[in-house]
Amino acid sequence: MCFGLANQGHAEDGYDLWLRYQPLESSAKARYEPLVTHLVAPNARPTIRAATDELQRGFKAMFGYDLVQRETLMGNGAVLVTRADSPNLKGLDLPFAKLGEEGYLIRTAVIAGNRTTIIAGNSDVGTLYGVFRFLKLLQTGQPIDNLDIVDAPKLKVRVLNHWDNLDRHVERGYAGQSLWDWQKLPLHKDPRYTDYARANASIGINGTVLTNVNANADILRPDYLQKVKALAEVFRPYGIKVYLTARFSAPIELGKLKTADPLDPQVQAWWKAKIDEIYSVIPDFGGLLVKANSEGQPGPADYKRTHAEGANMLADALAPHHGILMWRAFVYAAENAEDRHKQAYTEFQPLDGKFRDNVLVQVKNGAIDFQPREPFHPLFGAMPKTPLMMEFQITKEYLGFATHLAYLGTMWEEVLEADTFRPKKGSTVAKVIETPVDAGAATGMAGVANIGSDRNWSGSQFDQANWYAFGRFAWDPDAKAEAIARDWAAMTWGREAADPVVRMMMGSREAVVDYMTPLGLAHLMATGHHYGPGPWVSDLARPEWNPVYYHKADAAGIGFDRTAKGSDALSQYAPEVVKAWGSPKTIPENLLLWFHHLPWDYRTKSGRTLWDELVTRYDAGVDVVGKMQADWAALRGKVDETRWAEVRDFLAIQHAEATWWRDASIAYFQSISKRPLPAGHKPPAHDLEYYKAISNPYAPGQGK
Amino acid sequence: MCFGLANQGHAEDGYDLWLRYQPLESSAKARYEPLVTHLVAPNARPTIRAATDELQRGFKAMFGYDLVQRETLMGNGAVLVTRADSPNLKGLDLPFAKLGEEGYLIRTAVIAGNRTTIIAGNSDVGTLYGVFRFLKLLQTGQPIDNLDIVDAPKLKVRVLNHWDNLDRHVERGYAGQSLWDWQKLPLHKDPRYTDYARANASIGINGTVLTNVNANADILRPDYLQKVKALAEVFRPYGIKVYLTARFSAPIELGKLKTADPLDPQVQAWWKAKIDEIYSVIPDFGGLLVKANSEGQPGPADYKRTHAEGANMLADALAPHHGILMWRAFVYAAENAEDRHKQAYTEFQPLDGKFRDNVLVQVKNGAIDFQPREPFHPLFGAMPKTPLMMEFQITKEYLGFATHLAYLGTMWEEVLEADTFRPKKGSTVAKVIETPVDAGAATGMAGVANIGSDRNWSGSQFDQANWYAFGRFAWDPDAKAEAIARDWAAMTWGREAADPVVRMMMGSREAVVDYMTPLGLAHLMATGHHYGPGPWVSDLARPEWNPVYYHKADAAGIGFDRTAKGSDALSQYAPEVVKAWGSPKTIPENLLLWFHHLPWDYRTKSGRTLWDELVTRYDAGVDVVGKMQADWAALRGKVDETRWAEVRDFLAIQHAEATWWRDASIAYFQSISKRPLPAGHKPPAHDLEYYKAISNPYAPGQGK
Repeated sequence: MCFGLANQGHAEDGYDLWLRYQPLESSAKARYEPLVTHLVAPNARPTIRAATDELQRGFKAMFGYDLVQRETLMGNGAVLVTRADSPNLKGLDLPFAKLGEEGYLIRTAVIAGNRTTIIAGNSDVGTLYGVFRFLKLLQTGQPIDNLDIVDAPKLKVRVLNHWDNLDRHVERGYAGQSLWDWQKLPLHKDPRYTDYARANASIGINGTVLTNVNANADILRPDYLQKVKALAEVFRPYGIKVYLTARFSAPIELGKLKTADPLDPQVQAWWKAKIDEIYSVIPDFGGLLVKANSEGQPGPADYKRTHAEGANMLADALAPHHGILMWRAFVYAAENAEDRHKQAYTEFQPLDGKFRDNVLVQVKNGAIDFQPREPFHPLFGAMPKTPLMMEFQITKEYLGFATHLAYLGTMWEEVLEADTFRPKKGSTVAKVIETPVDAGAATGMAGVANIGSDRNWSGSQFDQANWYAFGRFAWDPDAKAEAIARDWAAMTWGREAADPVVRMMMGSREAVVDYMTPLGLAHLMATGHHYGPGPWVSDLARPEWNPVYYHKADAAGIGFDRTAKGSDALSQYAPEVVKAWGSPKTIPENLLLWFHHLPWDYRTKSGRTLWDELVTRYDAGVDVVGKMQADWAALRGKVDETRWAEVRDFLAIQHAEATWWRDASIAYFQSISKRPLPAGHKPPAHDLEYYKAISNPYAPGQGK
Repeated sequence: MCFGLANQGHAEDGYDLWLRYQPLESSAKARYEPLVTHLVAPNARPTIRAATDELQRGFKAMFGYDLVQRETLMGNGAVLVTRADSPNLKGLDLPFAKLGEEGYLIRTAVIAGNRTTIIAGNSDVGTLYGVFRFLKLLQTGQPIDNLDIVDAPKLKVRVLNHWDNLDRHVERGYAGQSLWDWQKLPLHKDPRYTDYARANASIGINGTVLTNVNANADILRPDYLQKVKALAEVFRPYGIKVYLTARFSAPIELGKLKTADPLDPQVQAWWKAKIDEIYSVIPDFGGLLVKANSEGQPGPADYKRTHAEGANMLADALAPHHGILMWRAFVYAAENAEDRHKQAYTEFQPLDGKFRDNVLVQVKNGAIDFQPREPFHPLFGAMPKTPLMMEFQITKEYLGFATHLAYLGTMWEEVLEADTFRPKKGSTVAKVIETPVDAGAATGMAGVANIGSDRNWSGSQFDQANWYAFGRFAWDPDAKAEAIARDWAAMTWGREAADPVVRMMMGSREAVVDYMTPLGLAHLMATGHHYGPGPWVSDLARPEWNPVYYHKADAAGIGFDRTAKGSDALSQYAPEVVKAWGSPKTIPENLLLWFHHLPWDYRTKSGRTLWDELVTRYDAGVDVVGKMQADWAALRGKVDETRWAEVRDFLAIQHAEATWWRDASIAYFQSISKRPLPAGHKPPAHDLEYYKAISNPYAPGQGK
């Protein structure tokens, strides 16, 4: 037993994420051993060291003994961890030209008579990514005898957004507190920060925005910049840059200026000096993320300036340092009678081409707010002269918090594969965000993190899959959700459990859609915390905060008419989309009530009336959870008991809450439709008043 | 490698607390093996199972193989884990009569020819405590060949007080969030709750108050009682009862009554029904803890009733269920010109004898508020007809939060050994709280917990020692701080490091006294969060919240005259104490300025003037931290690297903050004393305005 290691056999708890490096089966070990006999890493630069540390860690855990490290290749089975410019690779004619800055190749080759696995990129970070890929091959039992892998990320900026406050509360966080222990930084760098960096590097995430988009200027204080610097030092070897959110009014709050007008020379000077200060402390600082003039946040409109004027002022201060400015397009005004769905497009599209090269406009996947299903955001494809980046939400604010099993890979694949038809057929959302608008422009994807201080990082075992999948989609927006799920399941649960686990995952998101917001319904959650159903809510200050605004249920029917007969939000899409979605008969039924208000008796594709179909979907969703419970029960003994029990408990919670959503929604909508439940579907357990009276004042993630 | 165990060798991180069960050195193993050959536990009642599980866990980790369990004694080396009424123990004439309900004996004996170690109590919980004692012997390398241990707790109620809010914020918590994940209870019982129970059982803690004394009535909601029930189920086998805090206005908030007057029949009926409801859900519920008419909390005085009337109303509702009511004596009114030090005594002493038998009046160790040093509370010994229990603060609200190394065992020993002289010499505080006021009365001790969701439970490795020590003092108020430290250090750091660790610990509390509040000064911390120095603060709404109220520094001198010439708070003590402390010449110098206002030139025992002595003490405190840093550096390689590094980092933080306290305090007091620093003592690094301008708005534990 090694000195310094915890002596009691600690049960698995999810801390190791998908990097569990479980002991190999003897047959796999026998296959691999001749091919991985020693490690050669000619350079001990920090990132190469991070790479070899990981390889050593993984090898030791999987093979049961240390991987010998040698100065030079000494026989067959060398693993050469190096960089494109290594003399070892001379004359091999390897395709480094295809890799870009962060790509890697893994090639089986013979070098000076030694059968070698080469892992290398143009940069050390590329090599690090290659090592993680190699470890994944081992973890998933893939052959490694004849490798010819070439991989490079399709997006440049692949970042997490932590909605973390300085008091360590995580807004919409269901995994404990913020990881960043500001109180103890900079003098104490928690070892957990390194494990965070490892996990992100393993999925190619190369940046992290440390603070909430509902920003706090205090992060820009000199003492906090020292704390940020300490984090940057931990992340740097793993190729991860740090970013911060910038509160637009910081010149007033911190600078004691009288204005934050982006065209005011004093304001510009203040930001320039502040940004120069940041770079003097953190030379490779990534840049800033801004939420402005949205949900009460300050911004350029407070001074009658445009988003572009606000963004460009910051971008200009960042440009000499090669920093980027991510500017969110999530806007909807309090005093705007226009359908909320339309407002971001209305505000941003006319600004196309007006942003600086180093600005990325960050657009949520859909035009409302991270609902279980949303059609893709009409801005994708509509701003061909502006770098747009995708914003996904990994944390399950609207999909059941930490306890509901919902694999979001299927949601993200659906969005990324959607055809914007702009400029033409085949212009998928993925293609739009992958294609730089000009030679120097950036591309990117952001994910609102589900990571916190909980031992299992993400609040639940299965929520780790969404973090994992986000990294994989950021690397390759054309990736497939099922293949990603398979990789994750094999590494996280073991190969014996992988198939059933993948099946559970692939049906899970749709189950949530069905028991919460079927058939294109949306935004029907309880107020504030968004925990549990609240389709009756109609009393919030802003109309477009109310669930009734979204479902518009009345005696005649249900749904939001967004066609030309209604709000005409549909017209913001390409003509091909307008045509396909404009008719209830041709729109995919899972978007039906997103765009159409239809009678309760409307005949759906199944032959059932709309009302009957609604009820059927609610029950189908709950039934899928029941099926997951049965599938999971069957896996007992095939996975470790402690993690198995946590998932079992969470599925029980999910089933209870799915039933609650189903019962409350049916009770409410039936009070409006006044139609009987279809045969075979039980009435809700309680009356509507019971559901309306439920209060959960301490549900997590409320932002305070 | 066992299936289900985390495969990578995880570095120690403190999760195992003092229950690390490190592998035995070969010589110890050889000594022990013949004496621990098999386990016999004739009964599988839940608590016996908890005991044998622990024994198996510890044995496996220490010896490296499983401890054989047999149905009956089969040869020498049996460990018999049983209860007093076991037939196996017939005729052995064991001293069970001395054990009371929770005590245990460990006896080496020969039973039917088998050399046996008997571990037994009158109850299963006593036996459980005995098993933990036995494991401690093994962990600390004690002989086990001829055991004759008899041990029983001297206090009946040994409880933690968690100042945990329902949103999981911990008031004055520096170890993460509340452990209680209310959102996921009752369906998910985190395995961590069991480890919490094990740790507490290992030190004899038999109760836990789950919620903040700044209470929230919502914990009494039926749905929350189900969550509490789930926790009670986890803790029950470990002999730990659950308690809750009761907000005195709950009849209004929850019951929708118009009053909370304890003499109102409807109010009484409401509490009776609510308490009956609690017991219908949790039959062995411990009882309630109340903070009333203190710092804004509601209470009987709102209706012109006394503390006794308020407490007795609740006690009467608890009595049929054998529940207890703990009522805090921590009161000081907003509109009271009397010295805060006097107010609790003034309010409570006249109520002596007026409380029901099942009430315990909970008294802080001193009359102000958990300062680094306080003289014992004058109520101890002054209420001979009322059960008084001690309240210590384990969490280091005023001693540097989680990062400052400060072993509080020396503080608590000092308080417990203090002679109240009531009714006579030798009536130590320990004796007062150990002696039931009558046959049926309870005795007890409460500790404000330092436990949270941090992996290391208590915020730092060394803060675990204070949790440990609290349990040891609650079991035996006459225990010795150094012996406790030695046990803890041997188990937590290993025997090689124990001596230097104990030396560090034994000097640590006094170092904090010296660099924060030397010579009997008190309450000089910054506002709100209590993080860092604020001796200049004079602008808070209530006079007795201001540091200046406490030090009363002026051109003439410094200190609070509490003698007859001043506030006369001293007169609340016994005449012997009044005499000893009434003169600056006879009072222990570490209480000097607590009771006396003296000139800056007053000649102290060292020969130095008071001003010079003050400065000398500040520097002495900082120097002790520097010495601890050196001692700790010398331990590198003798303890595991990860925990070593955390302590190293925290000592660096402590040294920086001790220096900050020292510099800011000197800068401020020098502006008043107007005297030069004694030779050899450096001026503060910055001017007073610098220190006054420091702000730390996000320091943890602020109660929101």
